[in-house]
Amino acid sequence: MTLAFAELRRKVCDLHAELTRNQLVTWTSGNVSGRVPGEDLFVIKASGVSYDELTPEAIVVCDLDGKLVDGELSSSSDTDAHAYVYRNLPEVGGQVHTHSTYATAWAARAEPIPCVLTAMADEFGGEIPVGPFALIGDDSIGRGIVETLTGHRSPAVLMQNHGVFTIGKDARAAVKAAVMCEDVARTVHIARQLGEPLPIPAEDIDRLYDRYQNVYGQ
Amino acid sequence: MTLAFAELRRKVCDLHAELTRNQLVTWTSGNVSGRVPGEDLFVIKASGVSYDELTPEAIVVCDLDGKLVDGELSSSSDTDAHAYVYRNLPEVGGQVHTHSTYATAWAARAEPIPCVLTAMADEFGGEIPVGPFALIGDDSIGRGIVETLTGHRSPAVLMQNHGVFTIGKDARAAVKAAVMCEDVARTVHIARQLGEPLPIPAEDIDRLYDRYQNVYGQ
Amino acid sequence: MTLAFAELRRKVCDLHAELTRNQLVTWTSGNVSGRVPGEDLFVIKASGVSYDELTPEAIVVCDLDGKLVDGELSSSSDTDAHAYVYRNLPEVGGQVHTHSTYATAWAARAEPIPCVLTAMADEFGGEIPVGPFALIGDDSIGRGIVETLTGHRSPAVLMQNHGVFTIGKDARAAVKAAVMCEDVARTVHIARQLGEPLPIPAEDIDRLYDRYQNVYGQ
Amino acid sequence: MTLAFAELRRKVCDLHAELTRNQLVTWTSGNVSGRVPGEDLFVIKASGVSYDELTPEAIVVCDLDGKLVDGELSSSSDTDAHAYVYRNLPEVGGQVHTHSTYATAWAARAEPIPCVLTAMADEFGGEIPVGPFALIGDDSIGRGIVETLTGHRSPAVLMQNHGVFTIGKDARAAVKAAVMCEDVARTVHIARQLGEPLPIPAEDIDRLYDRYQNVYGQ
Repeated sequence: MTLAFAELRRKVCDLHAELTRNQLVTWTSGNVSGRVPGEDLFVIKASGVSYDELTPEAIVVCDLDGKLVDGELSSSSDTDAHAYVYRNLPEVGGQVHTHSTYATAWAARAEPIPCVLTAMADEFGGEIPVGPFALIGDDSIGRGIVETLTGHRSPAVLMQNHGVFTIGKDARAAVKAAVMCEDVARTVHIARQLGEPLPIPAEDIDRLYDRYQNVYGQ
Repeated sequence: MTLAFAELRRKVCDLHAELTRNQLVTWTSGNVSGRVPGEDLFVIKASGVSYDELTPEAIVVCDLDGKLVDGELSSSSDTDAHAYVYRNLPEVGGQVHTHSTYATAWAARAEPIPCVLTAMADEFGGEIPVGPFALIGDDSIGRGIVETLTGHRSPAVLMQNHGVFTIGKDARAAVKAAVMCEDVARTVHIARQLGEPLPIPAEDIDRLYDRYQNVYGQ
Repeated sequence: MTLAFAELRRKVCDLHAELTRNQLVTWTSGNVSGRVPGEDLFVIKASGVSYDELTPEAIVVCDLDGKLVDGELSSSSDTDAHAYVYRNLPEVGGQVHTHSTYATAWAARAEPIPCVLTAMADEFGGEIPVGPFALIGDDSIGRGIVETLTGHRSPAVLMQNHGVFTIGKDARAAVKAAVMCEDVARTVHIARQLGEPLPIPAEDIDRLYDRYQNVYGQ
Repeated sequence: MTLAFAELRRKVCDLHAELTRNQLVTWTSGNVSGRVPGEDLFVIKASGVSYDELTPEAIVVCDLDGKLVDGELSSSSDTDAHAYVYRNLPEVGGQVHTHSTYATAWAARAEPIPCVLTAMADEFGGEIPVGPFALIGDDSIGRGIVETLTGHRSPAVLMQNHGVFTIGKDARAAVKAAVMCEDVARTVHIARQLGEPLPIPAEDIDRLYDRYQNVYGQ
């Protein structure tokens, strides 16, 4: 494996620290992956490794069928889902999966999160949609993610009774989407506990999304 | 005491750090114990010692009647309950007791946590059951734990008006069950605040549980 | 000032770290005091000092009328309340005041916390009572505390629309009561969000309280 | 740039640590600014910089029209709002903007936070008001802040569907207002989940506010 692989493994390894810092994961329950630029490969967390002990060696390399290509450890049990998404959405360069509390609570009711915050319009460009109930072990989860996100601006999908999957142009963008998804899931949940949040008009959501995607940051 | 005792005491001592890190305990209110392999003995936290000051010396050795066999400090006031479980469930190698917030809230209503999350099917194989109201001071709590968990896949029981007891093949497995119990107790609570979570069909719970117990991890 | 004063100031200073660690305080909004053994004096946090910058020099000495006796800084604006309690309850050796979130939420509704947890029976021996609405600036708050806690087992009182005051045989015991008060306020609140917690029979509360006060710990 | 600029940039940079410590911000979503004494200038966080990597170089200098005067990075996308407030409220020396969870939940419902806590009477002198829904990109947000806070004691305004803006005599005072705003937003929210908090009579709010503004602290 070349220097580029080593660097990507280190980056993806380090990004898991954002999952714990933002309290998106419990025990070993979430993972980050990143596509290897220019190859039909991606790197992903090994299965059941605790975040404290995570080193680049525990970030293994898989092909787009989810088969282990390099690494001493078995890959995440969510590898098939990540592989399906990389196979079918070529613009995706990174993915994150978590069971973060508030987002998963919406997923347990199979209820999309309505877009009632300007920060949500910025990042998600509308509601955060719900994907189907799907068992682990084949392409069901990956297919549910791809079908739900196709034609949607949202980089996050709530998989029914399960948790969140996010996509991005790279692993860091997918981590940001996972962090922001939990943040808006929590705020909208709390807002709705005491009444109905006011809607944001669709044309204002469009304006906020366009500006944020094109102007924000450095 | 041999090297094996010293090592087990150190392990059980260190596992208490997972209770504080995962915010399962307040002040001195929870404890971990571990069976001594090949002996009718177990080690358990001493009573009323703060987690900050916990050293292997504060993990004392008891026999299966709960009598102190080695150690300078009195054992946890939950020692009788742990002893009863080790006496009656030979497959149990570790136990944890906490008053973690969300699980205890379900326990205060004596309401089992319904299995509406795939992560819950994975770890608990169904609902998390409720045991009886029982006073401390004799075998009542231990008996309640054993009677409730017998014939159940769940390694966790919510003792009415009290808190959580978890079991495992070793102390670490029991700690994991305590951590996951609070996690699903919180997520399902939050889901139910705004509506009814969707059920997972019983046969899918079975499939998830089987796969997780047999395939997950390294 | 003697060595005993220096030691008490250091102890009371250090105990404020438990307020922040247990997330009972925001900005500079809580304080700990301790009676000087054998003297008509107590030590208390200075007003408006942040917990990060707290040193024993910011723990000042007051007499039982609340007048500053030693220290370069003005004493806490809650000094009059602490002084009144020390004057009228000679068995009290330490006090804590916080606006901890869940306890203050019960106080905002002037609703006592019902005793539905064994941990609450242990520490509080029954419900946590509510004291009157009282303005700062004279003896009103102190009088409300003393009148409410007299004849009660609870070392904590919820002052209406305000926050929590706790007492103890020393400052550490009062801190423990403040920590446990927020813990049970939170758990009972969460339990009640989805139904009614089951009551604990009065005679069982008595048994739990007696055992915990006499047997628990080292 | 002179020493005074360097010092102000350092101070404003450091104050962002209070936003993360008090959990008011997620990813890069909040900012602090401070007026440069004696100049028609203010300093503000650069856009999209993470709090971990924040250095005084990422605190840039703008004029009161929001134009970048000194700094290598683009200023916060909220610069226009801060500039409008500095232009129109000469007594304001510092500002903070966050999407802190509970305050933003009230903002999503466009519901002011009622003054039912003595700590709220102290700091805000009454309810925390709601400003209009306003799109980013021109003076709309700034105008909404100024119009809502004019004639109000509250240093905080909840901007509908958006988040919180706070003002103060300097940046530190605005940070304190942002911290206390989230604290009371959370406590009053939780109080209202199980019933209606008791009101505080208007004349008592006045007395509490007067005392706190004039007597509290050193």
